[in-house]
Amino acid sequence: MSRFMDVRYASLEPYTPGEQPRDRKYIKLNTNESPYPPSPRVAETINAGEIDDLRLYSDPTARDLYGAIARYYGLQPSQVIAGNGSDEILAFAFLAFCGQKGVAFPAVSYGFYPVFAELFGVKARAVPLKKDFSIDVGDYLLSGENVVIANPNAPTGIALPLNDIERILQAHPNDVVLIDEAYVDFGAQSAISLIDGYDNLLVVQTFSKSRSLAGGRIGFGLAQQGIIQDLMAVRYSFNPYNLGRLPLLAARAAMEDREYFDGCRGKVIATRERTKRELRQIGCDMTESLANFLFVKLPNVSGEYAYNRLKEMGILVRWFNRDGIRDYLRITIGADAEMDALIRAIHTIIEEAEK
Amino acid sequence: MSRFMDVRYASLEPYTPGEQPRDRKYIKLNTNESPYPPSPRVAETINAGEIDDLRLYSDPTARDLYGAIARYYGLQPSQVIAGNGSDEILAFAFLAFCGQKGVAFPAVSYGFYPVFAELFGVKARAVPLKKDFSIDVGDYLLSGENVVIANPNAPTGIALPLNDIERILQAHPNDVVLIDEAYVDFGAQSAISLIDGYDNLLVVQTFSKSRSLAGGRIGFGLAQQGIIQDLMAVRYSFNPYNLGRLPLLAARAAMEDREYFDGCRGKVIATRERTKRELRQIGCDMTESLANFLFVKLPNVSGEYAYNRLKEMGILVRWFNRDGIRDYLRITIGADAEMDALIRAIHTIIEEAEK
Repeated sequence: MSRFMDVRYASLEPYTPGEQPRDRKYIKLNTNESPYPPSPRVAETINAGEIDDLRLYSDPTARDLYGAIARYYGLQPSQVIAGNGSDEILAFAFLAFCGQKGVAFPAVSYGFYPVFAELFGVKARAVPLKKDFSIDVGDYLLSGENVVIANPNAPTGIALPLNDIERILQAHPNDVVLIDEAYVDFGAQSAISLIDGYDNLLVVQTFSKSRSLAGGRIGFGLAQQGIIQDLMAVRYSFNPYNLGRLPLLAARAAMEDREYFDGCRGKVIATRERTKRELRQIGCDMTESLANFLFVKLPNVSGEYAYNRLKEMGILVRWFNRDGIRDYLRITIGADAEMDALIRAIHTIIEEAEK
Repeated sequence: MSRFMDVRYASLEPYTPGEQPRDRKYIKLNTNESPYPPSPRVAETINAGEIDDLRLYSDPTARDLYGAIARYYGLQPSQVIAGNGSDEILAFAFLAFCGQKGVAFPAVSYGFYPVFAELFGVKARAVPLKKDFSIDVGDYLLSGENVVIANPNAPTGIALPLNDIERILQAHPNDVVLIDEAYVDFGAQSAISLIDGYDNLLVVQTFSKSRSLAGGRIGFGLAQQGIIQDLMAVRYSFNPYNLGRLPLLAARAAMEDREYFDGCRGKVIATRERTKRELRQIGCDMTESLANFLFVKLPNVSGEYAYNRLKEMGILVRWFNRDGIRDYLRITIGADAEMDALIRAIHTIIEEAEK
């Protein structure tokens, strides 16, 4: 920290993204990307004319994209806001809603929540998970604070049923309940159906996972108009052109190709379920993940050892050096051949440990 | 504002971007875009393989782009930070440096500065311009507050010489002096040459104007490593993947095509100078703009009238309904044929007013 920086950031610990090594070619199962390319409609829509048009600003009202998202989910365009990745929507929400009353979120969840809180001076209450890594909804019923829940949660993959989310919403009539559905398309129940009934609900989703556009940087928030207008006021005070022309085009094309989307997530779900079975057969312990990753503990070896050994073997997974989850790996669901290689590698590590 | 929003935003007035009308085709001279498409290398670099790779996150270290920018300006990659437009870099700087000591900037300048200050609770001192719209450097020598100066300033286009900027830097050894050079490539002197001598200098530039990538959303900051590291801490606490894969590719390609860049800005400068001459010949008053826009007052008609009449005639310019500049129009330098149409239209308005 230089002498110029605001002293309130003396203890700021930025988020650490997953490794993006360039030294060798890995089977990359560490950042929850899709193994499948985006819809072919994305490439079709990004043609030479569109690239020449990059000289012009993008549409700050993002009208075409909001329309496509609204049509997909049966909402109004005025109930949609898009961001430069869902991270930006989360940041806007922390800034808009959380400064005065603070926010509660699970102590084991997306590692960015405490960082946003620190960056914007928001009081954060990190609530421990239950022993089985699930969320105890009873911990989030304290009216007067906002709530952020990833559903399914990360890195556990465990999902909350909608009636639990509804209990939280009902306990917080004057607070914002943000449900971060980055991974919802792989089998959990979305809270979007609750938006019409609850003006305090903000659902955040992303194109990064189920729509294969991690490198496109597009996320979105869905809510009743009041919350969206507040977020828009922040967006127009931070970066009105937060989405460039190409992400706007890519996102719209991906959103409109429902068939391709359903095909990709179907494949990921099928690969996940058979990977679960095979890893359990060779002795691994894991949560019942409904996300595009597994949360896995190998028998008889530490998480750190397993992470490093897999990396040596050319497979990159994510290990969090944090109390309570130190023995677990978060493993993205890749293509079938990648998961075959993973299962073989884990089998080898288990056999090595038994010697 | 909904009942959920932080009350400190009760008076937040978001930035108003220039109009992007869709009702008819205008000669668009209102948002300072380039009339020329981006370098052809941009289209070459964005091929089908790159679009398939959108499934993968972008490089959070932006290594290739930082290298290209550093090479162009003779700096180290560690002296570069890129953002989702220069607006994002400005926002990061307000957040990182200005909370405690506040910031001074010209009262007539980029309209986003007071918005960032409001958004992040920063005390702002808006300093009036001199009667001739120039900046009085003596107003910015108060040590203990940060300074933001657009050079050339907007919407006046008037540039400060480097020795004036150096006076400000010397008066502020412990404050950040941010020089916003969005328009510097059209003829003003860049402060980049001062970076090695002043660890309190942050220069901000953009690909939106001189590199024809307004819709690509890429800006960057240049400074000694201390300031860059502080900005990086904010970036990694806000959105580590703030630049997607396509903007990273587009920006690098544009930065490496020096010849194309020089050709485009040369054409804009030539068109600006002859437009100045011709508008003065028909009676317009204007500043000595070194930017890619002119700041023009028509004889005998109000700015509002001129703006509306031009719009009726199919030409969109920017008019600011603000004290001191209400009689002026900000007119982007377009292609020669567009400026011919503009000059004819202004001539007509002047003749109408004389009747």
